[in-house]
Amino acid sequence: MKLLRYGPVGQEKPGLLDSENNIRDLSLIISDINGSTIDDATLTRLRSHDPQRLPLVKGVPRIGPCINGVNKIICIGLNYHDHATEVGAKPTPEPRIFMKANSSICGPNDNVEIPRGSQKTDWEVELAIVIGKKAKYVDETSAIDHIAGYCLANDVSERDYQMHRSGQWVKGKSHDTFCPIGPWLVTKDEIKDPHNLKIWLEVDGVRHQNGTTGNLVHKIPTIVSHLSHFMTLVPGDLILTGTPAGVGMGIKPEPIFLKPGMIMELGVEGLGIQKQMTISSDY
Amino acid sequence: MKLLRYGPVGQEKPGLLDSENNIRDLSLIISDINGSTIDDATLTRLRSHDPQRLPLVKGVPRIGPCINGVNKIICIGLNYHDHATEVGAKPTPEPRIFMKANSSICGPNDNVEIPRGSQKTDWEVELAIVIGKKAKYVDETSAIDHIAGYCLANDVSERDYQMHRSGQWVKGKSHDTFCPIGPWLVTKDEIKDPHNLKIWLEVDGVRHQNGTTGNLVHKIPTIVSHLSHFMTLVPGDLILTGTPAGVGMGIKPEPIFLKPGMIMELGVEGLGIQKQMTISSDY
Repeated sequence: MKLLRYGPVGQEKPGLLDSENNIRDLSLIISDINGSTIDDATLTRLRSHDPQRLPLVKGVPRIGPCINGVNKIICIGLNYHDHATEVGAKPTPEPRIFMKANSSICGPNDNVEIPRGSQKTDWEVELAIVIGKKAKYVDETSAIDHIAGYCLANDVSERDYQMHRSGQWVKGKSHDTFCPIGPWLVTKDEIKDPHNLKIWLEVDGVRHQNGTTGNLVHKIPTIVSHLSHFMTLVPGDLILTGTPAGVGMGIKPEPIFLKPGMIMELGVEGLGIQKQMTISSDY
Repeated sequence: MKLLRYGPVGQEKPGLLDSENNIRDLSLIISDINGSTIDDATLTRLRSHDPQRLPLVKGVPRIGPCINGVNKIICIGLNYHDHATEVGAKPTPEPRIFMKANSSICGPNDNVEIPRGSQKTDWEVELAIVIGKKAKYVDETSAIDHIAGYCLANDVSERDYQMHRSGQWVKGKSHDTFCPIGPWLVTKDEIKDPHNLKIWLEVDGVRHQNGTTGNLVHKIPTIVSHLSHFMTLVPGDLILTGTPAGVGMGIKPEPIFLKPGMIMELGVEGLGIQKQMTISSDY
């Protein structure tokens, strides 16, 4: 299933995408897409409904973040070999983790704010894991049982804040709208091999990132298991698994950073496409 | 007011401490102590009730975390001169920030888990700020308007995970029970000067930390204003402001770390006392 949330900011309703790419309303069945409605039992119940019999949503509503009430966003740094190389770093022997404030979450096509005075706002297309079941000290073989599905994310980053404002990385990762997620939470049964998906990002029509999740250094079961040894993952938690080469700061001979009025378009195979315009925070 | 939450884990009710240190039940007035019940209007409404007329809570219930539904925990590192010195670091020109998973929150007197295999679990008594009103790009002079109150926190930390497991600090800060908060959320009107409070921590009766919040490098208005330029603070967010000298890893000639069966007792003047026993995670 492709689960989504549609409607104005803060008033989103739960829905799903049917086989003809129409949105079907789920609000008579569940109150929202959040940590308490993505357990195996609820997903099974949702699957038992014929999408064609669910109310059709007319028009073209705004698409909101594909999951609400996210408790924590954990990100894996330098998790593609090519990206580590472009920024002059080496992948770490264990997943390198940092956090991103959950207040940075927005819809997949919402405007992305450039912070006041920012000169180095950058993009990062990522595959995100959505946790469906509490995970504490789980091993790699059972890690998949704790995943509800996957979604597309843009880990927008201010490089100067991230690296030169007295630390740590969270400082450059947490501005409002720095975490567009969606359009869909795609349940894991629909993604045959999450380590073999095209992943790409364009700015103003120029393709800067063009990779495959096959190049992930630390794979998904390793990430979930490893994290669960340091903190308890709860339903609705998001894990951003890292970005491939092609971020703005890695471009030669001169890096490229985002300015108001630019268009980012990005996707992961099977997880949909996002499109954001950048705007100033000085409104 | 001293607001608190009492009862079994996950079933806490809201309450307040009256002038005779009795708990009075608030559950007929508000559903919980969380981000939506610590705005100025609700706090004014709570103050209008005579505590002596509120239902008296009998017995000695467990005290839970003093606030529920915390969205994010932001911590300020190396924010006491004496602590920075003891760990061989310098305070940074701007607040150094890191995050702690909100799944680490527990009650002030709950057992604290030593992670499996951990050899370097350490303590950090801290003054925590509780945000009462959304803050984005606020200046230092208005920062106080965005604070609901303060509480005591223990920023329990696994030093090896924090510093030697491929980064970043969040890795050593986020185990379950690594963030006891409370006993009370003390509204800001009760704390005349948050920069002049005794702050202390003992392990098995030996006082290791014995400082004053007067030694904070970056003061509370600076912290709130600074953070609000990097992310939006929302009601219920917690900011742990840093710890004074006397952490286990700083003890000479040999550091001391926590093992199962030890007792931590800690306090900040006016914010109450916590007492935790350490236990193994291998249950």
